[in-house]
Amino acid sequence: MISTARKDINIVPFVSVDNMMKLVLDIGIETFLKELAGFIEEDFKRWEKFDKAPRVASHSTEGVIELMPTSDGDVYGFKYVNGHPKNTRDGLQTVTGFGVLSNVGNGYPVLLSEMTILTALRTAATSALAAKYLAPAGANCMAIIGNGAQSEFQATAFKAILGVKKLRLFDIDPEATEKCCNNLQGKGFEITRCRSAEEAVEGAQIITTVTADKQYATILTDNMVGSGIHINAVGGDCPGKTELHKDILLRSEIFVEFPPQTRIEGEIQQLEADYPVTELWTVITGNIEGRLNARQTTLFDSVGFATEDFSALRYVREKLTGTRFFENLDMLADPDDPRDLFGMVLRADKAA
Amino acid sequence: MISTARKDINIVPFVSVDNMMKLVLDIGIETFLKELAGFIEEDFKRWEKFDKAPRVASHSTEGVIELMPTSDGDVYGFKYVNGHPKNTRDGLQTVTGFGVLSNVGNGYPVLLSEMTILTALRTAATSALAAKYLAPAGANCMAIIGNGAQSEFQATAFKAILGVKKLRLFDIDPEATEKCCNNLQGKGFEITRCRSAEEAVEGAQIITTVTADKQYATILTDNMVGSGIHINAVGGDCPGKTELHKDILLRSEIFVEFPPQTRIEGEIQQLEADYPVTELWTVITGNIEGRLNARQTTLFDSVGFATEDFSALRYVREKLTGTRFFENLDMLADPDDPRDLFGMVLRADKAA
Repeated sequence: MISTARKDINIVPFVSVDNMMKLVLDIGIETFLKELAGFIEEDFKRWEKFDKAPRVASHSTEGVIELMPTSDGDVYGFKYVNGHPKNTRDGLQTVTGFGVLSNVGNGYPVLLSEMTILTALRTAATSALAAKYLAPAGANCMAIIGNGAQSEFQATAFKAILGVKKLRLFDIDPEATEKCCNNLQGKGFEITRCRSAEEAVEGAQIITTVTADKQYATILTDNMVGSGIHINAVGGDCPGKTELHKDILLRSEIFVEFPPQTRIEGEIQQLEADYPVTELWTVITGNIEGRLNARQTTLFDSVGFATEDFSALRYVREKLTGTRFFENLDMLADPDDPRDLFGMVLRADKAA
Repeated sequence: MISTARKDINIVPFVSVDNMMKLVLDIGIETFLKELAGFIEEDFKRWEKFDKAPRVASHSTEGVIELMPTSDGDVYGFKYVNGHPKNTRDGLQTVTGFGVLSNVGNGYPVLLSEMTILTALRTAATSALAAKYLAPAGANCMAIIGNGAQSEFQATAFKAILGVKKLRLFDIDPEATEKCCNNLQGKGFEITRCRSAEEAVEGAQIITTVTADKQYATILTDNMVGSGIHINAVGGDCPGKTELHKDILLRSEIFVEFPPQTRIEGEIQQLEADYPVTELWTVITGNIEGRLNARQTTLFDSVGFATEDFSALRYVREKLTGTRFFENLDMLADPDDPRDLFGMVLRADKAA
């Protein structure tokens, strides 16, 4: 159990990669994604309570390192995340991360967690949550263009949350599609491997684009997207990185997480700075209607926002209770007399 | 040894509070402070190489939680730190923290460390480093007003780096002074306990103010400070928190770390936004002269800057090599095929 007793306040529960995997499998990936989407939805509903700011990015020629803080007034959270598209060539993850939750009242951290896996899960859960509000009624077929690390998480979230079972997969690298198929085998999907993006979108009501490492790429062109489609644009997400042709944006109703961040990183960086977009939270609270009719093209221009990481950490923290899927880290100095930090160091000698 | 081999890249060395204390005692506190000041000095000398920004603060009624990122182009670092003045009343630290160093090239973290103790050390080392350039020649007596958690670190750093052995201590709480005296006993100091701030500053060439939890307090008034003094103003450091009377600022030459941050948090928040101050790094590089003559009053308006934490983490990382003062954390997901994160999670079942 995660103790909140005063005497243990210097100890921070840590969820390693190994424990995160065990936690996910213990709960079940689909249940995890469904419950996680519930937490994300809950936090979108109290959007106005959150301290929000665009992430703090440190760019280099190779990639970016970002800190994404937020707070709901009681709990503070942040995620450290990198984005290095060339990492894959060296056998490394493009995106790795970890996150922390803290008590706003005293500033003490209460959770440290790996977030490479958790980010993949929350990204997929957020996509499926958005689609629940935006995709055409009865959508059961999704094209996934880009079959890399995020693709199976997207597929599984859309199955768990929307009941999407038909997948049409395409990647410029057939090995990626092969890997994706293998991982999803026996999970209740009906999968079609496609030889082009054009083929993949045929008959799909939802199109998920989740590619990386492209400078103003155009994965989808205007003529490929019929009416009534929901586009879930997950990839790109850097200044200079986009996936969709501008014309698609211009005839879609665009939904975003946090406009100041999406205008820098999302597909809409191709549009004017004041181009009208709808904030996803206003749809989730019911203030604004999402999809208006069956012919409309809706677009979720997903870039990932700090509150979603916050929701994910909050979910993990709740699920940890009563499990053994964490270690205790001696992370915070806690002298008996708070003014006697120096004395604590001096006396460590005798305690050793 | 901290491995940088590809196969261990998912493992992050973690320095717990216990290991930090052992490392400090193993090196010796004075040597640690002296060497750490050397690293801080080195980084101030290459100041222009650093990515610098004011810290990212999340304020609440009880305190503040801050992220302080920086990068020298090769290594990225950030510190998480809170400031909750009322924590002491609950037996908690006012300031706790931890920090991370990462590889800019691939975004992978390479060190996670406690920084409650390390911050106390780097704050003291920075103060003594500034005084090395600013205090009058031959200064050997320092007043310390405020005898809380930071006071012994300040005393020890000034002894190690400047040879200051005479201390004049004052705190509104005599028990704090008592604690400070006890901790410094037998460490080669000549200590005078004083009954007022006025008494403490008598005969001191350096005045260190290191108090907390005061709204626009005036620990020092103008008539208390003679000419030729160096003031090391460490406490305060929040919007609305200061220690010195404005008149002292107006007749001092003021040195700061990073003006955009100090103008918000430091003593100079009492002055006009364009009031001239000198950046400490320009003195350390020799571009600008520090103290001009023996009659001048110099003031280091210290608030603590991200590069100092970076230097401290860099120093700890170097000193860890070959020791056992760290644990290895399984913090980063590292599938054999970087595109197969989902498969790694699936297969954790069989590996377990």
